[in-house]
Amino acid sequence: MSLKTLGPKPAAELDKELMSEEGGFSIDQLMELAGLSVSQAGGDGLVCARHLYHYGYTPKVYYPKPTDAPIFVGLQRQLGHLHIPFLTTPEEFASTLGTTDLIVDALFGFSFHPPVRAPFDAVLTSIIDSSRPVLSVDIPSSWDVAGGPPSDGDQVGHDFMPEYLVSLTAAKPCVRHYKGRRHFVGGRFLSRDVATKYGLDVPDYKGVDQIAEVPVDVKVEERL
Amino acid sequence: MSLKTLGPKPAAELDKELMSEEGGFSIDQLMELAGLSVSQAGGDGLVCARHLYHYGYTPKVYYPKPTDAPIFVGLQRQLGHLHIPFLTTPEEFASTLGTTDLIVDALFGFSFHPPVRAPFDAVLTSIIDSSRPVLSVDIPSSWDVAGGPPSDGDQVGHDFMPEYLVSLTAAKPCVRHYKGRRHFVGGRFLSRDVATKYGLDVPDYKGVDQIAEVPVDVKVEERL
Repeated sequence: MSLKTLGPKPAAELDKELMSEEGGFSIDQLMELAGLSVSQAGGDGLVCARHLYHYGYTPKVYYPKPTDAPIFVGLQRQLGHLHIPFLTTPEEFASTLGTTDLIVDALFGFSFHPPVRAPFDAVLTSIIDSSRPVLSVDIPSSWDVAGGPPSDGDQVGHDFMPEYLVSLTAAKPCVRHYKGRRHFVGGRFLSRDVATKYGLDVPDYKGVDQIAEVPVDVKVEERL
Repeated sequence: MSLKTLGPKPAAELDKELMSEEGGFSIDQLMELAGLSVSQAGGDGLVCARHLYHYGYTPKVYYPKPTDAPIFVGLQRQLGHLHIPFLTTPEEFASTLGTTDLIVDALFGFSFHPPVRAPFDAVLTSIIDSSRPVLSVDIPSSWDVAGGPPSDGDQVGHDFMPEYLVSLTAAKPCVRHYKGRRHFVGGRFLSRDVATKYGLDVPDYKGVDQIAEVPVDVKVEERL
């Protein structure tokens, strides 16, 4: 048993295929399922925050740059109805860390390219300095999708190792640099046909769980 | 502790409010969450079938009248990629019952008005005659949302009592006629503000469950 990984190009192709007319999934469905997976390991940030609230937690969301895209406008409204606070500055964010039990790191997606730019450099620095447990979504922020953490010891994130990682649909190649405590795969919607096409295994999900744990010391195979 | 119910008009208003610009939910999100709730108790039919497949079951879907609405076209494609069979005639449906462990009854919604018309009368008759366990979604098929099962002993469904019932978002008034084995409430996305507005209680969900069980002998209160 090994862990297959997908680089950014095939990972983007897989997303595109799922959301094509032929694939039949809407972005609303996939974000809902992705955020649900993440919430069960610890959201996509906004969906995850909503589920965590309903599980009885008191999430706060650092969300500095609201967009006009309807799906994000809708998600913000859903969180607003639950009175979940939005934080917009690195200072506001940093001031909440003392009372935070878990940080869900969903800052960037798999198409992120280092280095981390302002204001996110300050945010990531405050996360690392807080020593609070972090669950990263798909890729620890500041890491390169293939290369892992910044090799330059002066760059923010060179020493960032989250306690938990949730890979969405498929692990990304940088997972070979992951030395945290627990690694989960989420996104329980992949057909065997598509998994085969991309050279992936469907994880061994239990019961009705939307995540499956993968041993941190598993052998890693880069598919593409 | 009592179980609050919503009649068809406020139930429709609640759905409309959730999906309004102000509510922020899309139909894709709500159907995904509703279908996930149903799958955890035993989809909305199509979403439920997809989740059941991923849980390791081998669902078949009776779906006699495909629609052109994009959300249903997409859901059909998603099931097609999993090679889940679609059955289109009452005969095809009846022929599968001998090897069926559980029937998920999602034939009608809460705006159904009796009596059951062809071809669904034959389908429901074969369900009842099979004596297989049934999980009904929101309202047992043939029941009136307020009045419960048909009182006329000649009408199909007068003797229909599913083993399991999943109420979506809120129980409907006909639940006072429910004498099956287990009743669940699903749809873990309601804010306390909206619940209060409609006179509902948020169910006591456990952990990351998307359903909560309600005692079958609970006191029922009709809110509206």
